[in-house]
Amino acid sequence: MQKINLGEKLATFSDYFSPRTVTTYNGHDVMVAKLNGAFIWHKHDDTDDFFLVLKGVLDIELRDRTVTLSPGEMFVVPKGVEHRPVAREEVHILLIEPTGTPNTGDAQTAAPRKIA
Amino acid sequence: MQKINLGEKLATFSDYFSPRTVTTYNGHDVMVAKLNGAFIWHKHDDTDDFFLVLKGVLDIELRDRTVTLSPGEMFVVPKGVEHRPVAREEVHILLIEPTGTPNTGDAQTAAPRKIA
Repeated sequence: MQKINLGEKLATFSDYFSPRTVTTYNGHDVMVAKLNGAFIWHKHDDTDDFFLVLKGVLDIELRDRTVTLSPGEMFVVPKGVEHRPVAREEVHILLIEPTGTPNTGDAQTAAPRKIA
Repeated sequence: MQKINLGEKLATFSDYFSPRTVTTYNGHDVMVAKLNGAFIWHKHDDTDDFFLVLKGVLDIELRDRTVTLSPGEMFVVPKGVEHRPVAREEVHILLIEPTGTPNTGDAQTAAPRKIA
């Protein structure tokens, strides 16, 4: 039950597409992540996906359009909707998913959940 | 299914302690709010309370200590824990609570939930 400084948490790691849990909220992991390049197309059948951009510009590609997010902008990908995050530069995000959600939508390919 | 610019949403209203829902996420309202002055002591028996400060400095008083949050800092008040937000200046926050949660912890005194 401590306050969380998101910038300090982001400074503790440098690998991309490997979210760090900074706290939990109602059964969800609240995470920070660094992105660079294109992630894979995936969907989460059981959960919405919460993105808030803290630094950089993030494209969230959907099958029919692309949502471009700058710092201070957020987007919720509804459950079941295919999406692909693409960072054309280093991007920092706040990400919320239920604890245990594989970041790729597939436990076989998901990054291990780490704590910062 | 639109992106949300938090600053634009905050610019649409000026009243304090009256959160605006900007989107929903897994049964939760994602809200922005402006605070100024002291709110009331309250607790939420059924939910954690998510605060992320976007502007200004917010004290979250707990019964045994005070957590002071600057922009980019967040805090989760666990369910059942009494707290009182105190803003010594105008503060902007991102707030997440399950849809329907009274902001005072009591439906009788809660601000009507509004949409921005």
